Amino acid sequence: MITIHLPIHVYFDGKVFLSPDNIELLKKIQTTGSLNAAAKEISVSYQNAWTIIDQINKAAPQPMVIKQRGGSGGGGALISDYGKLILKEYEAIEKEVLKFTSQLNTEINI
Amino acid sequence: MITIHLPIHVYFDGKVFLSPDNIELLKKIQTTGSLNAAAKEISVSYQNAWTIIDQINKAAPQPMVIKQRGGSGGGGALISDYGKLILKEYEAIEKEVLKFTSQLNTEINI
Repeated sequence: MITIHLPIHVYFDGKVFLSPDNIELLKKIQTTGSLNAAAKEISVSYQNAWTIIDQINKAAPQPMVIKQRGGSGGGGALISDYGKLILKEYEAIEKEVLKFTSQLNTEINI
Repeated sequence: MITIHLPIHVYFDGKVFLSPDNIELLKKIQTTGSLNAAAKEISVSYQNAWTIIDQINKAAPQPMVIKQRGGSGGGGALISDYGKLILKEYEAIEKEVLKFTSQLNTEINI
């Protein structure tokens, strides 16, 4: 069976900063409140998780994740207010895209 | 400025066989009628172009490209009837997706 998929890519000034490759980490940081737990849930190393976050923060219009050094957990990460705004909008977009894709897949004729 | 992009991925039985990464080669084969010319136009080597085509043919429900051995040009490639059908449908989908994306981009609020 042939199906169409439309992975959402969010660009700022011509450069992608959110995609299916990195959005899951942000969502997991938001739900777990811990970078370590988030990294584990998507099966990347703690170091790789930092790298992904650095890339997002650099490419986004404003930092989406705030690093917290120290503490009993050895430092952590919080979604910034701006990040929360973007994640909320992303979710709304995701819903529209899924609806559109599912309609598109009923129409394809191949 | 933040913009959303929705690159089209076409799957058959859970495996992608068309994406922005390989669709251009097929389109160029169709317009130039030559694998060599098509490869040059998208700046990949002739050998890489064959590899891309082999991957598409293997993953698609039916071969999209027919290889032609020999001849003055050292062999070539033709889009199969099935490939033409898929490319036509892809173009129709592309138009719908571009329209939807452009509407989506007027609505985003971030």
